[in-house]
Amino acid sequence: MEKEDLALIKPVEIAVVGAGKLSWHLSQKLFAQGHTITQIFSRQFEKAEKLAKLVGASATNDLAKINTNTCWVLIAVADDAIEEVSEALNSREALFIHTSGSAPINLLNKHKRRGVFYPLQSFSLQSKPNWNNIPIFIDASKNEDIEVMTAIAQTISNSVVPANDKQREQLHLAAVFANNFSNHLFVLAQAILKKNNLPFSAILPLINETVNKLQFDEPKNLQTGPAIRNDVKTIEKHLEMLDDKPELYKTYQLLTQSIINQHN
Amino acid sequence: MEKEDLALIKPVEIAVVGAGKLSWHLSQKLFAQGHTITQIFSRQFEKAEKLAKLVGASATNDLAKINTNTCWVLIAVADDAIEEVSEALNSREALFIHTSGSAPINLLNKHKRRGVFYPLQSFSLQSKPNWNNIPIFIDASKNEDIEVMTAIAQTISNSVVPANDKQREQLHLAAVFANNFSNHLFVLAQAILKKNNLPFSAILPLINETVNKLQFDEPKNLQTGPAIRNDVKTIEKHLEMLDDKPELYKTYQLLTQSIINQHN
Repeated sequence: MEKEDLALIKPVEIAVVGAGKLSWHLSQKLFAQGHTITQIFSRQFEKAEKLAKLVGASATNDLAKINTNTCWVLIAVADDAIEEVSEALNSREALFIHTSGSAPINLLNKHKRRGVFYPLQSFSLQSKPNWNNIPIFIDASKNEDIEVMTAIAQTISNSVVPANDKQREQLHLAAVFANNFSNHLFVLAQAILKKNNLPFSAILPLINETVNKLQFDEPKNLQTGPAIRNDVKTIEKHLEMLDDKPELYKTYQLLTQSIINQHN
Repeated sequence: MEKEDLALIKPVEIAVVGAGKLSWHLSQKLFAQGHTITQIFSRQFEKAEKLAKLVGASATNDLAKINTNTCWVLIAVADDAIEEVSEALNSREALFIHTSGSAPINLLNKHKRRGVFYPLQSFSLQSKPNWNNIPIFIDASKNEDIEVMTAIAQTISNSVVPANDKQREQLHLAAVFANNFSNHLFVLAQAILKKNNLPFSAILPLINETVNKLQFDEPKNLQTGPAIRNDVKTIEKHLEMLDDKPELYKTYQLLTQSIINQHN
């Protein structure tokens, strides 16, 4: 988005509930884009204060002190806490927004104007996110709010997409497979290597290369290994090697069969 | 390795059996490092000829025409074919080397001097490998041969490590988990997204970020998602969403349980 376009977007005033990893990065990014962060709430006052200082906001650990007489109330808390927080907030004309992939928008039903602002990334306190590349999924109960939220999200990211409850649920499920589960396979691989005095760095270039290729090609076209070659001899040998590790054995067997099914 | 050191390494003469992806890249790299490729064998003559032209070698599709009166005979063929090829070659003073991770060195038992030269990477014809970063695992029946092979491998890669049959087997098994299986999880994730009209690119930044972090931290420290949070509500919802997809259901269940077990 060009600077001139940015100038057309009216900065919004935002009260932020939550001071976790997502709130930490998103509040600072919205502040950097010229929006006003009025308040930061966290149950731990020090946490709220630390973030509030960075974005020129006031800090509170009392939900009742959140002034909802503002443009947006951004609820960036754990999924399980969204409804409780929403119910505890005074309803006004503000747009009440949660930031969760898997929580439905109706957790905010107490309020007339409801929205979802879901950046699909795994945030950590150590590293600065590259917002340009982070897909942001938007939903709202009113079309005008979808438009405003989209315009503001576009000042942060090049990839802003509307997504309803069902689509966000499926996105989150897909992310669990592609991200959480594949990371767990790295954990299992490292355990195998460690037992044989081999460093994880031995297989890191292989992982890097596969993910490099993923930028330009579909994963289905990149599948390699004994399963897709139907290399029964190697598969049997590997299963034998895992004979005393029932969890790895079952995982190997299931994923091998799944690869064979997928490509037949 | 410095240029002066390189000058100390006597170039070797190499006959190469096989013209697949590994042979394609390794022959060219050895040639570029100043070694002499005498012959390229492939059952498909055109394939042998194409590679032979690039490395100044002669091409043949007749194993009996491989002149084993040379320094190295590099057998870069499918695991299943190594023994047959080895048996078909005249034994001389040459060092007979295979390039497989999972095949034992004794498949070359016909010959006095046996070696293994295993670059752990998934090669493709489209992209040029970054040899500097590719770990090369070395074994040989004679210690002097391990030394020479190591020195030559070090002119190609910064990561050259001795590894016996058992270690290479375990490396290969770990690579199947970390690479083949995780790629399959990307395939499963894409299928979920496609069904919901969502592009794979929506979750690519998440995958990239996790693999970026993997360069600096252990996968165990990077685990995120409902399983490690013991977020039973989300896990149950996901399983419900997969109710009509038994393969995905079983995979989700097994890997979730495995994450829980691993971190408890």
